[in-house]
Amino acid sequence: MIELPGLITDPAVLAGISHDEAEWAPVGRPAAALRAQSTVDVQRAVRVCAEQRVPVVPRGAGTGLSGGANATDGCLVLDLSRMREIVEIDTENLLAVVQPGVVNDDLKKAVAEHGLWYPPDPASAPWSTIGGNVATNAGGLCCLKYGVTRDYVLGMRVVMGGPAGDYGTEVSLGRRTTKGVAGYDLTGLFVGAEGTFGVITEITLRLRPAPTIAARTVVGAFHSLVDAGRAVALCTRRGLQPAALELLDRTCMEAVEEWKQLGIEPGTAAMLLARVDTPGDAEATALAEAFTEAGAAWAERSTDAVEAEALFAARRLAYPALERLGPVLTEDVCVPRSAVHLMLARIEETAARHQVRIATIAHAGDGNLHPLLLTPPGDDVARLAAQAAFDDILADALELGGTVTGEHGVGLLKRAGMERELGPEVTAVQRALKRTLDPLNLFNPTKVVGEL
Amino acid sequence: MIELPGLITDPAVLAGISHDEAEWAPVGRPAAALRAQSTVDVQRAVRVCAEQRVPVVPRGAGTGLSGGANATDGCLVLDLSRMREIVEIDTENLLAVVQPGVVNDDLKKAVAEHGLWYPPDPASAPWSTIGGNVATNAGGLCCLKYGVTRDYVLGMRVVMGGPAGDYGTEVSLGRRTTKGVAGYDLTGLFVGAEGTFGVITEITLRLRPAPTIAARTVVGAFHSLVDAGRAVALCTRRGLQPAALELLDRTCMEAVEEWKQLGIEPGTAAMLLARVDTPGDAEATALAEAFTEAGAAWAERSTDAVEAEALFAARRLAYPALERLGPVLTEDVCVPRSAVHLMLARIEETAARHQVRIATIAHAGDGNLHPLLLTPPGDDVARLAAQAAFDDILADALELGGTVTGEHGVGLLKRAGMERELGPEVTAVQRALKRTLDPLNLFNPTKVVGEL
Repeated sequence: MIELPGLITDPAVLAGISHDEAEWAPVGRPAAALRAQSTVDVQRAVRVCAEQRVPVVPRGAGTGLSGGANATDGCLVLDLSRMREIVEIDTENLLAVVQPGVVNDDLKKAVAEHGLWYPPDPASAPWSTIGGNVATNAGGLCCLKYGVTRDYVLGMRVVMGGPAGDYGTEVSLGRRTTKGVAGYDLTGLFVGAEGTFGVITEITLRLRPAPTIAARTVVGAFHSLVDAGRAVALCTRRGLQPAALELLDRTCMEAVEEWKQLGIEPGTAAMLLARVDTPGDAEATALAEAFTEAGAAWAERSTDAVEAEALFAARRLAYPALERLGPVLTEDVCVPRSAVHLMLARIEETAARHQVRIATIAHAGDGNLHPLLLTPPGDDVARLAAQAAFDDILADALELGGTVTGEHGVGLLKRAGMERELGPEVTAVQRALKRTLDPLNLFNPTKVVGEL
Repeated sequence: MIELPGLITDPAVLAGISHDEAEWAPVGRPAAALRAQSTVDVQRAVRVCAEQRVPVVPRGAGTGLSGGANATDGCLVLDLSRMREIVEIDTENLLAVVQPGVVNDDLKKAVAEHGLWYPPDPASAPWSTIGGNVATNAGGLCCLKYGVTRDYVLGMRVVMGGPAGDYGTEVSLGRRTTKGVAGYDLTGLFVGAEGTFGVITEITLRLRPAPTIAARTVVGAFHSLVDAGRAVALCTRRGLQPAALELLDRTCMEAVEEWKQLGIEPGTAAMLLARVDTPGDAEATALAEAFTEAGAAWAERSTDAVEAEALFAARRLAYPALERLGPVLTEDVCVPRSAVHLMLARIEETAARHQVRIATIAHAGDGNLHPLLLTPPGDDVARLAAQAAFDDILADALELGGTVTGEHGVGLLKRAGMERELGPEVTAVQRALKRTLDPLNLFNPTKVVGEL
């Protein structure tokens, strides 16, 4: 029996905060949940759970796509979304200190008022929390040029146990300086660890000066998906560095068009959208040229900020447009950039082979593809076919020198894929780190390195 | 008795490869040394050393400044400088695969032929190896804008033991893709671990397109060191992002002038040198304005590439100019950028209090200061005073919210400072990782987390 003030045991409430947004990831039945208001709440909960050997599953907004925040049987769900204070914005040193429950877009807005910018922009930015972004090392659109979440985390406070002391001990990792090499990079190790080493209670983030130049958009329409992939390779080879380089395939565009009637031409197999934030015309021109040379039916550039945003609308609408059609199983492979067109071709083959409808959104400039497997609601045969296609996509990505997860994390859905990618020796090293840092296997057990 | 083909036991040769360039760090007597030619050599050496419990001290060019490559008594010095093959330059994916002994500048030249750029630029770049750069997470001048070594390491191959298997097992960490979150970030953990987890045998590095714009230099001369520090803070606050922002104090400039007669005006207390690599004049103008507003006696901008380099000459010559005067104990603190002027003032006070001559070079834009403690050769009293000053500088950096090492690493010289900075809990976590990954304490023992 867990005894803590404010403990939630109402089954309906528990059900609502027992899972993230991953389709088909297993969800256990938690013993209880707690909405922590402070570090002291987190410490007390961890202490009590350690005594009773109750697993602790930390969560933020629950927007994850790999089951990393799903409850395990008998666990305490530790909801951090109410710890949402922006503790400090340091304009002199371009950094912010935040609690884990601060929503990404709220932080962006708060720092923008000081002429600063927090770049990481996962698609979930309007809802997802910084704690969750850090736990999964979230990517997004602008990481092509500006890096992923890890590149912005200078330090953090974590409630942990094991070598740090009794479970419930809070430690401070990292620093407030731009550089520093005093000891092993624990901050970097805890970023992307999906809450399996401890509970993040505070994060120190690097900021950038706000961009001073309005972004422009370059759009290219392609008659073939593979040509679009080739255009991406050409941009990379020419050293072009747009702030984003996104790809939408035909299924995405049809779903958007059906819903919102943006006037996307039928017959377009793929669209590339580049965002340019350098001064002058040179970069936009070079991108449009590369698109055309790779076989684009047409390539267009925005003339003002409103048009730039309008041209990006299809990208933002793609995911919700597809979700209207039924459950979406979101893949997240990343391949070397030169292999994007090969991976796209394989995804088309996989879709045909398994008779599964697959729509692909890609952070193409990074080689990070999100094939979205669409199934009619309640159709078990289609679901099995989609799961087989999911496995084939992972195998193809590995064969092309890629990874099974570019930015969504391992959670529950990618455990087998991760082991296949890393091999037994490196998997054993991963497990050894988990045992060392969390000897009771208290924090988010079964995730990442958890046994299948 | 170690038995390996090619073993070096000649005391004179051993003495030459038993230490790095750190002044006053303790140097042990190795049992032998081996110049590895291949991964197989490394694996065999590690296997034999593990059987006989002979510590393995890996080294590259030995340009380190913290004693990280210094021999420990009875160890095998494993010299990797002959493993200097550039295995691959992948122009399609902007990456290179190299052996650890490749010299930084050699890699820069090789990738430049393909229109590519490897940014990390420690001052040792003409001699230091990529393996050493990775082991220490080397910084440099351009990390202000382009990041440190860690930001360029995508993956590596490492000969290790412990959870990976028998000592001598080679594992592959990381990836070739730009993004990836499959498991804990072992690559990041091994970068900066100073060879205490294993021996790096191959590294996969991210590259950038070669810069297309010639760099320009903006120089500001200040009558007061503290004004120069304020100029740095002003540049940061205004969101200026030069590719480098370096500071030289009076002692540096006098040493350079005495040696090379560049025509630096006497009476200048500090000089700031900024490198600008964005198109147009805006950034250089804004930097010059910030220098002037902060109280610069004058601020000048280069008009062509030759002049830009000439203006930077004083920075490049400072260290060798000072070394002519006697042993140089190189400090490496990093403070929040807003505290640079406070740290500079404290260094001046420390120099006066201990009667030690201190010259300060700083990557000022990063808050990373290198106070260089100068002592007449053979003067033991001066040496004790310098060591006391060294400790005071570390304490001051910590008091200002900084770190005891910005880019040189812990090695032997900063072990006590690191413990003071991290505190007992985090130090215990560091030690636990070392015990897990190297249970025999075979790899570079006594360094970083090694007991004092």
